[in-house]
Amino acid sequence: VSEAFLDTLAAIVGPAHVLCQPADMLPFLTDWRGQRRGSALAVVRPGQMTEVAAVLRAAGAAGVAVLPQGGNTGLAYGTLDTGPGQRIILSLGRMDRIRALDPVGLTMEVEAGCILHTVRQAALAAGRQFPVSLAAEGSATIGGIIAANAGGVNVLRHGMTRALVLGLEVVLADGTVLHGLRALRKDNAGYDWKHWFIGSEGTLGVVTAATLRLLPRPRHTMVALLAVADPAAALALLVLAQEELGDAISAFELMAGSSLALVERHFGLAAPIAPAPWFVLMEAQASLPGLAEATDSVLATALERGHAGDGVVAASDAQAQRLWSLREHITLAEAREGASIKHDIAVPVPAMPGFLAEASAAVERAFPGARLNPFGHLGDGNIHFNVLAPPGTDAAAVNDLVHGLVIASGGSISAEHGIGRYRKAALLAMRSPAEIAMMARLRAALDPGGVLNPGAVFD
Amino acid sequence: VSEAFLDTLAAIVGPAHVLCQPADMLPFLTDWRGQRRGSALAVVRPGQMTEVAAVLRAAGAAGVAVLPQGGNTGLAYGTLDTGPGQRIILSLGRMDRIRALDPVGLTMEVEAGCILHTVRQAALAAGRQFPVSLAAEGSATIGGIIAANAGGVNVLRHGMTRALVLGLEVVLADGTVLHGLRALRKDNAGYDWKHWFIGSEGTLGVVTAATLRLLPRPRHTMVALLAVADPAAALALLVLAQEELGDAISAFELMAGSSLALVERHFGLAAPIAPAPWFVLMEAQASLPGLAEATDSVLATALERGHAGDGVVAASDAQAQRLWSLREHITLAEAREGASIKHDIAVPVPAMPGFLAEASAAVERAFPGARLNPFGHLGDGNIHFNVLAPPGTDAAAVNDLVHGLVIASGGSISAEHGIGRYRKAALLAMRSPAEIAMMARLRAALDPGGVLNPGAVFD
Repeated sequence: VSEAFLDTLAAIVGPAHVLCQPADMLPFLTDWRGQRRGSALAVVRPGQMTEVAAVLRAAGAAGVAVLPQGGNTGLAYGTLDTGPGQRIILSLGRMDRIRALDPVGLTMEVEAGCILHTVRQAALAAGRQFPVSLAAEGSATIGGIIAANAGGVNVLRHGMTRALVLGLEVVLADGTVLHGLRALRKDNAGYDWKHWFIGSEGTLGVVTAATLRLLPRPRHTMVALLAVADPAAALALLVLAQEELGDAISAFELMAGSSLALVERHFGLAAPIAPAPWFVLMEAQASLPGLAEATDSVLATALERGHAGDGVVAASDAQAQRLWSLREHITLAEAREGASIKHDIAVPVPAMPGFLAEASAAVERAFPGARLNPFGHLGDGNIHFNVLAPPGTDAAAVNDLVHGLVIASGGSISAEHGIGRYRKAALLAMRSPAEIAMMARLRAALDPGGVLNPGAVFD
Repeated sequence: VSEAFLDTLAAIVGPAHVLCQPADMLPFLTDWRGQRRGSALAVVRPGQMTEVAAVLRAAGAAGVAVLPQGGNTGLAYGTLDTGPGQRIILSLGRMDRIRALDPVGLTMEVEAGCILHTVRQAALAAGRQFPVSLAAEGSATIGGIIAANAGGVNVLRHGMTRALVLGLEVVLADGTVLHGLRALRKDNAGYDWKHWFIGSEGTLGVVTAATLRLLPRPRHTMVALLAVADPAAALALLVLAQEELGDAISAFELMAGSSLALVERHFGLAAPIAPAPWFVLMEAQASLPGLAEATDSVLATALERGHAGDGVVAASDAQAQRLWSLREHITLAEAREGASIKHDIAVPVPAMPGFLAEASAAVERAFPGARLNPFGHLGDGNIHFNVLAPPGTDAAAVNDLVHGLVIASGGSISAEHGIGRYRKAALLAMRSPAEIAMMARLRAALDPGGVLNPGAVFD
């Protein structure tokens, strides 16, 4: 059966684009942290939408599961499976063209395999911006960030990926193609089905192309690094900044002093201000004049009120990049430090200081020797509450403790990374049976044969 | 059967809240333009979510359809039906509390029947804003604008209603309650089902409460009225303004000179600048200083390049309101002028000048005596392309002509008003059978008995 099926795949996409050798498949079957390895009959690399549809039909007929994959940068094992049953990886990487960019209509049509960084650069070159920005943007694809509803550092102002998708082309499990590449900013004609697929992690359909929303490119950017006493002071600073700068604030990142200490230890990158218990990295963007003036006012008031201590505002693009670089190296520094237990949690923004205090104390009490590395998007109520745990620590117990406090705070156990195969148990802990049953109803309605990414999100 | 059913309803919500007399039901069964009258066994007015669930269960058991209704301000007959079968109107107006407002987390929890204007005022009183703004905001309810995914004048900057909803409480047709009132800005835990219900026009579930997203209240507002030669010049002005002001632009409205002439004739409101073929009403908001300076720069350049002729920038709030008043009276003036055939179309923004020229010429050629009243949200590619037609004009033929050109431009026959019972045929003309079939699959999965708003959106 397998041999005939592989021949069918080769006939659809060409023999060169069906990878069956372990060495060839390895990059597609290993997560970027090297922590898990999946298995598959083959990695199939279609070159166009009609090939995607044909592969899905062939797989459905053969009883083989299909796991759609973008840049394989996910953190929740969304496309890595080791369970029973046969499966193929459907890698969209060859479909990587930018088909159109409209600087007047502020739209861009791109294929699913196009790299996020490429899209961002193309927008900038046209004097516009595509604001989804995240650490993996050099590898993550548009199809992947749509399937994951990726977040990143600009959610505070521009929303998740969902908010920046105007239209989708999607292939259903049975090969049906939905042509929805509409470059419209308003369209209330029937159910807006693109939202069913955004964030569904490849379980409802395969995104093959998207029409993205662009924004004007702001003329001025302000980046500041500020020392703060604690998360409550950071929150007070956020409120103050929002009063003065409005939604010009595009990022408001909180970092523990211990997080920046890790960055300095492993990469030699030091903050240009004195060590502090916590730091805020704040960015604002605007085309209007007056950003610098308003920033000065925020910082003077913050200092006066004690919301912030020492601080620095970047005087050049290079300096701004150096400040951002501190933030961006935290995850890498954590990896060099050793094994860690990651959490991608969200709570209501005002609840964050209390959550951080409570969860930190609880983890340190229950797991002696554990060190905390909390950092992330305070402005969005999303912190990566990571725990550097001594060898032998019961990771599941740490997860349960942290996620229990998250749920008690009305929060989410996955703010931006998704569920994949990593957070399925936690999902069941935070969503009601009625919600899970309703999700399952949609999944069964769209993919009755269970072809698409079985084992992901929920069973 | 009916008598027993009405007794059951009275037992659930109280006898005073089951309206059966024609005079009592009339306001709920007539659209605000007085053009259509629906029929119903009763108008039922629940006071809380558990009553909504009980009413739905009772209706399902009795084989009676349920049409959820907010402020009854819709333009697509979404809750007015005259067809066979028995039905009740489920009016959410009594559930009108603001439950919580969090100025730090920028969220607000409100019940479905809360009036939009009330929500907006509460946000302003707390120094924040809820930016959905539309002509009917004094009557439209939060549940209604969510069911309709309402647009309005601030979509350019803040998106449709969908973009401002963080969480929903929804009752399904079988009475199942989905508790999703989460005040989270990021939540990728499973399918984000709230998006299935937003814009589904009461066909998939009944929204009983919502957690809304607020924004900082901007300190400065600029409103300008400018004369432009034609829509192409208006578009050039938009691009220029976006370069200088960025996404501080919150509204960019195009109005035909003939539209403002109607407003002057029927309401005595005159533009403070000389008559022109077209006008642009532009609004920008920011907390940063520098808005006035940047506006001056835009206007000087626009004049120099010929994008705009005469113009005025409001010097006070009162003047700004007078400029907005011109825009807001167009629909009322049109109604006083006589019968009109309305279109709520969208095309890609850069295609709008061509569409307006082509559609205007085609309508005037095919329907002698027809006069055009095009106005609306050029910044969003959404114009209300209304036709004042002589008595006896074949409205369906006008619709077909206009919608045919819209579809040929890659547009939508309903940008913001929805489908209801008014645009069902046009929906079928613009969505593929595969799309309609997929919408029907979700509807059947969530409401297999066809209890909720049968006859709306599609059959």
